[in-house]
Parts: sequence; C-alpha cells; structure tokens
Amino acid sequence: MFRTKYSNHAVDYSKMDFALNFCKFDSPVKYVTEIIMLVGGKNYESIWPDESDPSVIKAIDQQKLPFSFEICEMRSVEDVFTAISEMSVRGAPLIGAAGAFGIYLASLEMNSSSDQEHHLENAARYLISCRPTAVNLSWGVNFVLEKIRNRRHNEDVSATALRAAVEICSLEKENCRKIGINALPLIEEISRKKKGEAVNILTHCNAGWLACIDYGTVTAPIYFAHEAKIPVHIWVDETRPRNQGARLTAWELGEAGVPHTLIADNTGGHLMQHGMVDLVLVGCDRATRRGDVANKIGTYLKALAAFDNKIPFYAVLPSTSIDFSLSDGITEIPVEERVPEEVTNISGLYGKDIVNIRLCPERTNALNFGFDITPAKYITGLVTERGICSAGENEIKKMFPEKIK
Amino acid sequence: MFRTKYSNHAVDYSKMDFALNFCKFDSPVKYVTEIIMLVGGKNYESIWPDESDPSVIKAIDQQKLPFSFEICEMRSVEDVFTAISEMSVRGAPLIGAAGAFGIYLASLEMNSSSDQEHHLENAARYLISCRPTAVNLSWGVNFVLEKIRNRRHNEDVSATALRAAVEICSLEKENCRKIGINALPLIEEISRKKKGEAVNILTHCNAGWLACIDYGTVTAPIYFAHEAKIPVHIWVDETRPRNQGARLTAWELGEAGVPHTLIADNTGGHLMQHGMVDLVLVGCDRATRRGDVANKIGTYLKALAAFDNKIPFYAVLPSTSIDFSLSDGITEIPVEERVPEEVTNISGLYGKDIVNIRLCPERTNALNFGFDITPAKYITGLVTERGICSAGENEIKKMFPEKIK
Repeated sequence: MFRTKYSNHAVDYSKMDFALNFCKFDSPVKYVTEIIMLVGGKNYESIWPDESDPSVIKAIDQQKLPFSFEICEMRSVEDVFTAISEMSVRGAPLIGAAGAFGIYLASLEMNSSSDQEHHLENAARYLISCRPTAVNLSWGVNFVLEKIRNRRHNEDVSATALRAAVEICSLEKENCRKIGINALPLIEEISRKKKGEAVNILTHCNAGWLACIDYGTVTAPIYFAHEAKIPVHIWVDETRPRNQGARLTAWELGEAGVPHTLIADNTGGHLMQHGMVDLVLVGCDRATRRGDVANKIGTYLKALAAFDNKIPFYAVLPSTSIDFSLSDGITEIPVEERVPEEVTNISGLYGKDIVNIRLCPERTNALNFGFDITPAKYITGLVTERGICSAGENEIKKMFPEKIK
Repeated sequence: MFRTKYSNHAVDYSKMDFALNFCKFDSPVKYVTEIIMLVGGKNYESIWPDESDPSVIKAIDQQKLPFSFEICEMRSVEDVFTAISEMSVRGAPLIGAAGAFGIYLASLEMNSSSDQEHHLENAARYLISCRPTAVNLSWGVNFVLEKIRNRRHNEDVSATALRAAVEICSLEKENCRKIGINALPLIEEISRKKKGEAVNILTHCNAGWLACIDYGTVTAPIYFAHEAKIPVHIWVDETRPRNQGARLTAWELGEAGVPHTLIADNTGGHLMQHGMVDLVLVGCDRATRRGDVANKIGTYLKALAAFDNKIPFYAVLPSTSIDFSLSDGITEIPVEERVPEEVTNISGLYGKDIVNIRLCPERTNALNFGFDITPAKYITGLVTERGICSAGENEIKKMFPEKIK
C-alpha cells in the first residue's frame, strides 16, 4: 500500500537535467511524481537513524521478510558489517547508505586520544571488504570520509558523518524518484501499443524500495505506472540462491497491490519465446563506463533471452552504481563468492517457524557466485536519474560528461 | 559406485550401425563398454517387474532421494499414473517404460467379459495424458499396444504386454550404453586438448541412470570417462523448481565417485564467461525432426550462454525421444504446466525429516512450466545411439533414414 501525490499535468522534462529520450511521448496519464511506501499503514524507508537515540541506526531486516517484519539495530561498525554481509541490509544503493552510516558509527567509537584518520580509514577498509561487487558501498563510505576531510575546522566529525549519510539517503531517494519518472514512458508506450492490455515486465532479484531506501530503481516506474492506472503485471524471478525475488519483490509488490506472478529463474526464456514478456527491467550493482552491468547472478541469462527474442532489456540504476574507472565488466568487476550453504540449503516457513533445510545429499559441494556481468551489447539501455541512454561509452559520456574526461 | 567391464582395445566402430563422427579418434584409453550401477553394493535399474509377484512393478522412488532410498510398488494403472505425475518415476526414457508397464497392469485388470481393446485404449489415453511433453510416454504405451495387436492368436495379452515392456527396458538400456560410447570421444578430445586437466561438463536436470533405466543418457559418457580415468568434473544445475539436479544428479554422481559441484541455475552463464565450462550435455524429452529440443525448463537459457561463449552444447537422447512427426518445437511441442506449489514451496531435509517449506508470502501466485524448447540453431549436435549428428533435418534424416520419408 502506498499514498501518492499527483501532478495534474505531464512532468516538464525541459526543466530536468538533460533532454530525455522520451520527451516525444505525449502522456495521456496524470503523472504520479511521488509515492510513499507504507507497511501496515506506516511510512517506512529501508534505513534511518533512530530519532531518540543518535547512536543507533535502524533498518528493515530483509533476512526476516516476508515471514516477519522486523527492524534491526546497528550500534557499531561491526553491526553494520554483519548486517550487510548476512544481507539483513542489501541492495546496491542501500549498502552504500549503510556503509556511510557505518563510518558515522565508527566516528562515535573514537575517543580524544584516537588517531582519528587511521581509525576511520580502518573502518572504511573493513566495511568496503564486506561485499566486493556493488560499487555503491565504497562510494558511500568514501563520500562520508571526503565530507569529514573537507569539514570546517570547528565542525564535529560525527555530526558531519551523520549529515553526509543522511544526505546519501536523500540523494538515492531522489535518484529513484527521477528514475521512476524517466522509465515510466517505456511502460506507457508499450501499454499504448497493447491498447491497455497489461504490460508484462520481468524482473530479477530485488531492486525495490527495500534495496534503495525508497521507491526502488526497477520498481519506481512500476509503482508510478500502477498509480497512474496503467495496467502492469510483473514476472518475479525467485532469484536463487537467496530468493530475493520470492521473498522481497513478491512481498513489496503484494503490499502495493501490483499484480505479479512468481516464477523459477529457469522460466523467463520460455515466457519470452511465447510473447509473455514485454519488457525486462533489472537493477545494477556496478556498471562500467562502457555499459557492462554487474547484477545478481542469472541476469546475463535473461539478457541473452531478451536479445534472442527482441524484447527491450533495461538496466535501471542511479549513477552512484556506475564505476567510471572501469571499462570491461567481465575482466574488471570483482564478483563476490558467497558460502556454499546458500546453495545446498534454503530457508522458508515451516508452520510458524523460519527453518533452514538441506536440498541435496549431505556431502555435496556447491559453488556460489553472487553476481554475473551482462555485456553492454545485450542491454537496450540504461535508465538513470538523468534519463535513458544506450549502453555505450559515448552515450554514457554524453549523459555524465563531468565523470568521463 | 559401479563395477565395470573393460575391453582391452578400442571399440570397433565399423561394426556399429553407422559410421560415427569420432572414428578419427585414436583412443589412448581402454574403452569401457559396460558399467553396472550399484547402490549400497547392490545392482539396480530404475524400474523392474517384481520377481516373486508378477502383478507388481517396482521402481526407485525418486521423490524420496537423496534423503531416503526407497522402492515404490505399482499394482494398477492408477498407481503408474500417480507415480509418473508425482514424479516418483520420472525421466523421458523411464516414463516410456513405466507407461508400457502400465498397459501390462491394465491387461491384468481385464476379465473375460471385458471389451479388451476398449479397456486398453482407455488405459493408454489415461497414461499418456499424465505428462504431455516427453514423447517417450506415448511411444512406450503405443509400442506395447502394437505388440498386443500383432501377437499370435494364442498368445496371452498380459504375457505379450510384459514382454514388450521388458523389451523397452532392454532397448533403452542398450541405447544409453551406445550413447555413452558415442559421446565419450567428445570428452576425450577436450581432455587431450587440456592435457589431462579435468574436463568441466555442465548438466541441467537429471538425465542419469535413474531417468533412463540404466547408464543414463548424459551420464553414460561421464561414467565411461570416469571409469577410463579421464578426469571429469561436473557442474550440476540444481534445476528449480523440482531440483532434480540437486537431489538426483548430485546423488548419482556422489554414489559413483564422480567429482561434481552443485550450482544455482543462475550460475552457468557466469562460469561459461570465465572459461569454467568445456562442454554442456543435456537430456531431452522430445526432439523434432529438425532438431529443436524440449528439455527441462531453463535448458534454453544455458544453450544461449553456451552459444554466446562458443562452448559445445549437445543434447543427448535415444531416438525414442525424437518425434519425427513434428518440425517446429516452439509452436508444436506441448509444454507441461505443473502446480504452482512446486515454485512457492520446496522440500528438503530438516533434522531427520523431509519437510515442505514456503518460500514466499502466503498469497503470492506462481506459474510453473516444466519445460522449454531450445531451437536447433543453438545446439551443436545430437548424440543418439547411432552416433552424433548436427541438429538439422538433413543430418537427422541421414542418421534415421527409415523414420523420415
């Protein structure tokens, strides 16, 4: 469930950062320009500093969803590290924010005799080591360190760090809102061609508001479309081994009342062959300057199938997920290897308990890569807060001229 | 574990049905020409008529593996239908044999006043309706009906049916043995190029001896290679939603001592991009005369990734899985839709119990297709009991001239 704010006229794209590909659309719908995510009638973001105790950072515990809605509390760098590595806190934009709050918590751990710079740099290295693939984590951590370095002489380190982390949350929230506005016309155009029949969108993993503080990347245009009464139907890849699709995307969409159907990850190709998918929208943990995209393992297979069946395939990401220092994703983006138990075992609801069961013979070994790289050539375009561009170095450079010299 | 029979010289291919692609290989290894599958030191096939009670057909219960090794008993057409639809008995060649035994059990249900032809035809229709995709089921059922129709005047219907069903078992066993011999040189050649480093083979679902009475299709050359001391390592796709890879292939390979690693279905593309897969071998539930292949859902995605990374991709199948009446797989092969609970829930071992747990929110809907179609253009070749050919109508026709007019 969510509340919405409508504008009664189409968004004035001419006032936005860049001319956008979809300016040509003459929108028949009232544009939704803001939505507020509600859980049980209460508005939530996925991470926030506790209002009453400034030494506590709170987050929705994504390990417990959808079976239990719980808030986890982080009081130290160690707590942040654990929450990220165990994926209570996950999603590229969110772990960027969590890393930033981690530096804030590190600053609280210092006393007057601490070697401040050394202490914070150690904390930064530790936090960044937690998950290697998403560039947002190091981006968020370094954003705060930079703000601390450049603070005014009399400014408190912790206050500066907290302000910087909150600034990241606001930035990512606004990035997602703009992404939603930018991607909505893609859905609207298909809806028009299908004469109002539901637009079938396939997603992989969870790039929803849980992963992104608010709105989500992939989900933002979906929520906007749904609120604008454009019929959509989402194919939710379960996304083994961690099942973020089955557990989180299905929960988010269910709460928001967006029609959706859960499928095994193996199913997307068949659906595409039979005209049952109109659009693929996936998130991104790190993109290179030429448009290769690291995302949850299995994304590459869906991109190949979309390409084979001439179905538009977009990666949806804030620019904080673009690593402008990298070019070739396959050789340059580090892919996280996680514990084999995520493959040999799985958690779910048995009666009223969340239990972990074994799926294979006792001695079977497993290998568990968290991500794969989709080469730019299989990506129709990137949707960012500045608009949509094709996945190529020149196009990305045109959209982010200040980032690529 | 298995016992083997060796021949001390290479197989004399010239005496086989057809000249084979790999005659050019001058094999340095002693060819293994026969293997015997052992479970706990005892030789098993996956289905057999009970020796002491001729009204009982026994099979390894594949629903219980790998957590429990149990034998299920079928005493009626209804029992066979249930065993196949619940997948205690599964795998294209095996359900062909099970369907044949089903007609035998139907013949035992007749009394002297029965309209024999009507009764058996009803049983046949019922059995064939059980699972629509694998052509072996209707092939096996019709094979027995045909033998009954053409029996000598004084021959007993049930005796004829039982003999026909046992004949199918022998035929499929021999098909798999020949397939193993025919496919082994593919592995051997890669091994030679890799100078004896392990050949990494990716498989999807279970096309092992459990699925095929004996040897398996995909696994036959793997077992032969392993016995011939050619180092192999198998990437086992878990194969959601039924996890035949995690449960059956991992168990089979573990019992046989063949090195293997379990992976989520999403992982294969990443492995292929990084040179970690040398060969993909998949089974087949129905192939068309032009070489499109229906196999477990997700096979198509692996074929696309293999094609993109120039990795040989072979479908391994007895000719009983080829439906020579069909041409275009995507439009002509019926794809089974199974219950959504196979996606929303999963079974595994919790303590000492096999339990079924829920993976998603309570109200989430799921869609569950059992198979997909891999177009011939993405298939390097078909390995059959007659040899290897490329996936094209002319090549298939050359190998089975009697089948295509």
